[in-house]
Amino acid sequence: MFPHFIVHLKQEIPNCSTMSKSKNYGFLISIAVNILLISIGIYLYAGGGRWAEKNLQIGHLQSTPPLGWSSKAALEAEIVAAMPCSGHGRAYVDGSGCECNGCYVGDDCSILNVTCPADAHGGDCMYLEPYWIENAVDTAVLISGWHRMSYNYADGSMISSELEYYIRKLHHIVGNAVTEGRRLVFGVGSAQLLSGAVYALSSKEASIPSNVLATAPYYWLFRDQTSFFDAKNFTFKGNTSAWHSNNTNLVEFVTSPNNPDGGLKESVFHKKKVNDHVFYWPQFSPIPKAADEDIMIFSLSKLTGHAGSRFGWAIVKDDDVYDKYSTFNFVASIGVSKETQLRALKILKVIVKGGGTGRPFFEHADHLMRDRWERLTAVISKSTRFSIQERKPLHCTFFDETRPPNPPFAWLKCNREEDVDCQAVLQQQGNIRGRPGSLFDDSTSYTRLSLTSPEDQFDLLLKRIKALVDQENGYIETVKSSNGSPFYNRKGLYM
Amino acid sequence: MFPHFIVHLKQEIPNCSTMSKSKNYGFLISIAVNILLISIGIYLYAGGGRWAEKNLQIGHLQSTPPLGWSSKAALEAEIVAAMPCSGHGRAYVDGSGCECNGCYVGDDCSILNVTCPADAHGGDCMYLEPYWIENAVDTAVLISGWHRMSYNYADGSMISSELEYYIRKLHHIVGNAVTEGRRLVFGVGSAQLLSGAVYALSSKEASIPSNVLATAPYYWLFRDQTSFFDAKNFTFKGNTSAWHSNNTNLVEFVTSPNNPDGGLKESVFHKKKVNDHVFYWPQFSPIPKAADEDIMIFSLSKLTGHAGSRFGWAIVKDDDVYDKYSTFNFVASIGVSKETQLRALKILKVIVKGGGTGRPFFEHADHLMRDRWERLTAVISKSTRFSIQERKPLHCTFFDETRPPNPPFAWLKCNREEDVDCQAVLQQQGNIRGRPGSLFDDSTSYTRLSLTSPEDQFDLLLKRIKALVDQENGYIETVKSSNGSPFYNRKGLYM
Repeated sequence: MFPHFIVHLKQEIPNCSTMSKSKNYGFLISIAVNILLISIGIYLYAGGGRWAEKNLQIGHLQSTPPLGWSSKAALEAEIVAAMPCSGHGRAYVDGSGCECNGCYVGDDCSILNVTCPADAHGGDCMYLEPYWIENAVDTAVLISGWHRMSYNYADGSMISSELEYYIRKLHHIVGNAVTEGRRLVFGVGSAQLLSGAVYALSSKEASIPSNVLATAPYYWLFRDQTSFFDAKNFTFKGNTSAWHSNNTNLVEFVTSPNNPDGGLKESVFHKKKVNDHVFYWPQFSPIPKAADEDIMIFSLSKLTGHAGSRFGWAIVKDDDVYDKYSTFNFVASIGVSKETQLRALKILKVIVKGGGTGRPFFEHADHLMRDRWERLTAVISKSTRFSIQERKPLHCTFFDETRPPNPPFAWLKCNREEDVDCQAVLQQQGNIRGRPGSLFDDSTSYTRLSLTSPEDQFDLLLKRIKALVDQENGYIETVKSSNGSPFYNRKGLYM
Repeated sequence: MFPHFIVHLKQEIPNCSTMSKSKNYGFLISIAVNILLISIGIYLYAGGGRWAEKNLQIGHLQSTPPLGWSSKAALEAEIVAAMPCSGHGRAYVDGSGCECNGCYVGDDCSILNVTCPADAHGGDCMYLEPYWIENAVDTAVLISGWHRMSYNYADGSMISSELEYYIRKLHHIVGNAVTEGRRLVFGVGSAQLLSGAVYALSSKEASIPSNVLATAPYYWLFRDQTSFFDAKNFTFKGNTSAWHSNNTNLVEFVTSPNNPDGGLKESVFHKKKVNDHVFYWPQFSPIPKAADEDIMIFSLSKLTGHAGSRFGWAIVKDDDVYDKYSTFNFVASIGVSKETQLRALKILKVIVKGGGTGRPFFEHADHLMRDRWERLTAVISKSTRFSIQERKPLHCTFFDETRPPNPPFAWLKCNREEDVDCQAVLQQQGNIRGRPGSLFDDSTSYTRLSLTSPEDQFDLLLKRIKALVDQENGYIETVKSSNGSPFYNRKGLYM
């Protein structure tokens, strides 16, 4: 790797705020880009002004030698990044203009659609996007047209040894998993690794298939995936509560912190198990000790928010299990994208390099999640109709203090007897989209709400929850629509 | 998308040939990079000289506005690309120095290891690497740290509609597959799509599993994959020749052009089938007509050589099959890497944009493959001991002429009765590594040899084959080792 540059990265990018006038799309896009390009050129040369995007406090090389073949791609990326999307969206080089967050619409994402549902049903961790924008210089990667065309790396393997090194280093810094003496399997997101683990662990005799279990509430993909693949050697059998510990032919999914409720979970049966630790990072949970399990699965999606990259890794103790697991990854997809591995490397390096402690990244992420939980708790504390999971403080070895977790999801309960379908209640009375408890093999009186969305989307969610709680307490709020005229929806609380 | 730039891309990059002196690796790498960076700066500013790498005739932006946050990544990529690897290797931003082709070794890949086997056993299409280097400007992509972090694109899907558009356009230009009225499934290489197709097509009743078949010689992954996943609803049953056409519960793999022998194949049973068309491109085969099958699978690996990207697509006729196929892709990996999709888009655009005809790319690729076949045929024509597959000329609608195919692999036969294990003969007497016929469910008197390796690797393969043929005809050649001293290996022909 080529890690060090002698130039300093302090000077801010000059402002291109006048560019906000150019909002042509569709067939006018190329003309717009040309104008934008000239504008950028002029403004960057002129060195005046400030960049429009609020969060784009991006460093600038003090003395940049002129570039050659890479200039066009770099310029293209900077033009797109400079597109003004009102802080409620983002443009991408493979898109066609601003792509807006949640309920924002319009060419520049400046309009809030007040009737749009607050979206809290997904698993994206977009709350971290501003962090990567702040770290634009060190996380950008230029991929040449001939970058790693082969199936293999130079050592003949399909995994980047450099990336493996940084993953091990990260676990060492964070102290959340034992990696010494273990081997790593890379996968196309944790999704591929979860099913791979079942193949690697399941019965060798098709006549006696392994029973695959999880403790409810559990991540729905375990069921959907295992059922879909429907192999001769394993069958999904649902909740551990229906099983006895004297059954030896089990493969147990243990998710800790748990999806959906964020609790630190242990195996029920202590036999063959797959430990899904994708949320076992300091921003979501205290780290009481380094996990030390047979198969531990992590993902970039939940650590850094890069779900689109589809990258995960499994830390594997047993050599035979590792061999079968690796074979699975080979026959399933002949490895993992080299572009993805390169990008994951760039991102993880930035985390690891924060003074070698990882603190800048995890403190940032923790700060955001803690703030959201405090705001949510303040609202829910005024309700008897709704409640959320308890957050038990534990000692965190990473932050070296006792602290409550900040789970990625609120596991919200509707406490009224008549609110049988909590998800329907939230949707119909609160205009909030979550995921129903039944999806997680639990009661429909629960709903899972994502707390890791972009800031504006979380704000809207909180506002809608507050409106429900206010209604419960006898307040009816009159709010204004985006065009300034008073807005009140007779159905209730569609704000 | 932002397709047009007003600047011209004609001026060549200035030369940095003096940089070839800096060959420090290991712990000295960061110092080396700093020196290199200063050198690049000085040389690029000075504007003198020529870039050392023979093939790096890369365009240069005539007037580049200074860049901001993207500069570091761009510079890093250019520094790495400029590393002198003697035309026998390449450095990568996630590597640690030159990574050498085939039998070349040394810090700058300048030394040929004469005892090293000629590697013809893989499936890489590195013969196209120089083309992507020539097209460096248009194929480079800068991925920002916050590029597409979400699981989804703006339209809620997991596939880039822009990429889908260019894939459809490419098939339209080439005329090799009907896409109108069909839907596309993206996959993590053709490997994922092949198994997904079996799930999508297989029996709905686990009690009567589908019999999965292929006509030998067939691509070994069909067997390994289907057997590994070992689902209740399908079982791999091997060669079609052992089956009768009255069996209705079949899923047939049809590979055309076939891997390993390059022949255009048709279905035997004309029932449920998966058409693997990854080699159905003008550089490998005449295109007599647009393929019009139920499921047609293509990949970037075989079209452009970007195997490391793990990207493929399936063109699907039936809506129900499409739904199950999409579900498969979702539960298997929750889609395909967004970095990969962006890069595939960049690459395909370059092909499609060649005057809108695709001709520059396919003519280049065809020229290389044709040249290799001519050279190989000239050597093999002097042998009775070895023979290769017949190449039947057909009318190609793309090139509008009748022409023989240029298959990616030579399907070489050892004709002597005593040469029972052809692969062992080549390895022991010729120091050539191919893949044995038995892997493809055919006789061991066959060996598959890859013809799509980098030029130097193909040259070595051809030299080794020629030496075997010369030996057959009574000539013994004395060749020189890389240090200039005469080299003769008493075991025979290890050159």
